[in-house]
Amino acid sequence: MSSKIRVGIAGYGNLGRGVELALAQNPDMELVSVFTRRDPASLRLQSAGVPVRALDQIEQYRNDIDVLILCGGSKNDLPEQGPALARWFTTVDSFDTHARIPEYYEAVDAAAKGAGTTALIAVGWDPGLFSLNRLYGECVLPVGQTYTFWGKGLSQGHSDAIRRVAGVAGGVQYTLPIEAAVQRVRNGEQPELSTREKHKRQCFVVLEEGASADAVREAIVTMPDYFADYDTEVNFIDAETLARDHAAMPHGGFVIRSGQSGAGSQQVVEYALNLGSNPEFTSSVLVAYARAAYRMNQQGQIGAQSVLDVAPGLLSPKSPAQLRKELL
Amino acid sequence: MSSKIRVGIAGYGNLGRGVELALAQNPDMELVSVFTRRDPASLRLQSAGVPVRALDQIEQYRNDIDVLILCGGSKNDLPEQGPALARWFTTVDSFDTHARIPEYYEAVDAAAKGAGTTALIAVGWDPGLFSLNRLYGECVLPVGQTYTFWGKGLSQGHSDAIRRVAGVAGGVQYTLPIEAAVQRVRNGEQPELSTREKHKRQCFVVLEEGASADAVREAIVTMPDYFADYDTEVNFIDAETLARDHAAMPHGGFVIRSGQSGAGSQQVVEYALNLGSNPEFTSSVLVAYARAAYRMNQQGQIGAQSVLDVAPGLLSPKSPAQLRKELL
Repeated sequence: MSSKIRVGIAGYGNLGRGVELALAQNPDMELVSVFTRRDPASLRLQSAGVPVRALDQIEQYRNDIDVLILCGGSKNDLPEQGPALARWFTTVDSFDTHARIPEYYEAVDAAAKGAGTTALIAVGWDPGLFSLNRLYGECVLPVGQTYTFWGKGLSQGHSDAIRRVAGVAGGVQYTLPIEAAVQRVRNGEQPELSTREKHKRQCFVVLEEGASADAVREAIVTMPDYFADYDTEVNFIDAETLARDHAAMPHGGFVIRSGQSGAGSQQVVEYALNLGSNPEFTSSVLVAYARAAYRMNQQGQIGAQSVLDVAPGLLSPKSPAQLRKELL
Repeated sequence: MSSKIRVGIAGYGNLGRGVELALAQNPDMELVSVFTRRDPASLRLQSAGVPVRALDQIEQYRNDIDVLILCGGSKNDLPEQGPALARWFTTVDSFDTHARIPEYYEAVDAAAKGAGTTALIAVGWDPGLFSLNRLYGECVLPVGQTYTFWGKGLSQGHSDAIRRVAGVAGGVQYTLPIEAAVQRVRNGEQPELSTREKHKRQCFVVLEEGASADAVREAIVTMPDYFADYDTEVNFIDAETLARDHAAMPHGGFVIRSGQSGAGSQQVVEYALNLGSNPEFTSSVLVAYARAAYRMNQQGQIGAQSVLDVAPGLLSPKSPAQLRKELL
């Protein structure tokens, strides 16, 4: 019998591949199977000897897996998979449609409570580590303001929006925090900042043959919700440059709490991420929280949970005594 | 009957006064009494109508207080008060002698378990919020290095050491992180840094009449443990300047985790504090954790605990549903 935590992966895109690699950095956990909706024979894993199985057969493996990491997308996969898989497994997912978290929580909670499983939802960095820092900030400095800035980072949603514009053959969009605004917040000014004052948008676009650059630029910068409220820079490049210089998926950002403690002293708390690979980092966070989900389930803490419910020590393979000695 | 959390303060120095002010920023909590070893009649509180009582009479108020915040010092007060008061009260303290935390934990744990109380120890920012960030960092990026830098900030221990030097009438010491080292860490270089490469020390000293500046400087910069391993700058000032420019107690610092995720991508996580008043901030952290200590005790989580054991949501006056909606 293995004493390692037995982990399954459901879904094998960027996130699933990242989870597979992150598990290799955590010797107390082992990957026992990858589940996919594609033909299992078509998947080539990075690890040797790990079976790939059909997702619709997953129920029969419920006794072989301690925690299942859901690596599907928030838009189409998780709303269905989250509640369905929580009926059979303790799960962790990175559901990140902020506005729908309450309803997703309810659906997953009902399934998990009925089954006696633990379902840790909305894990990653935003929601996730950024949420934690928004919480710690407002609890230790109840009089103050919280600011979240994102970037520099590739935004998948905005890149998709660009690629839907007529005349566009390819493209990416980077979100950039406006440094002057970040500096004002760090200085403790607590400014009121409009959308346009906080972030700008930078696009790199490959045109289809014969398309008008001016028309494409206009369609992008005036696009409601995505670009109209921002200063947007549109750069035209060729397909080769796009492939060579814009394949990485960096991201990051800041959560800053600026407040006054009791006698009026200025206090500023900042949490910053500078990520070379957004999906790899999210995967690493998912794996640490998979350890916690397993332990919470063992301790009888069933139902849906979020990072706000997880005692930090549960994330570590070290014993509580070792953590107190090394980290306090 | 009040539905507020009823809080007592044991010890009324900088920290106790800070806790009193922080409580006023948290409407779900109320200060019911301050306890002191001094003559209670000699204390003037900042709040109206709160009784001051003798610390040696505290046991008779055990039913009037939900959580007692211990505001004594780590060297002489807490080693005795921590275990003694945990026999009667759920407590929170800022014990910060890092090397002695394991033995302090054991002593307090035995007292609290015997009494059915909860004792949250070593709360503040280091140990405390910095410990949390060291933990989150190493759990999400198990392959990497953690760096802690302190400052710019006034160090009480080093200021005391200066004042013990013959010929010194007064003085303060600031710890400063070395910016070039911080920058290398932020860049993801993961350098090996010596003590001297991480921090420097800046002293402002008032000489006694007739004392030799050269002799005092030499005594300071060669002092083992405190200064010998650092580049130390000694500035001589007059008593008026000391009182005017060096009465504030700013502090802060950084915890940086630099690591590689699965496919080798560079990932950097930084937590930074820029504190106008160190004791006021520590007091604010103590008050947020007092709320959590009370709740943990209500939930039956008794014995000694640290910030690593506290589920973040317990720190907030908001409901779990509200937190999910607003912060995730």
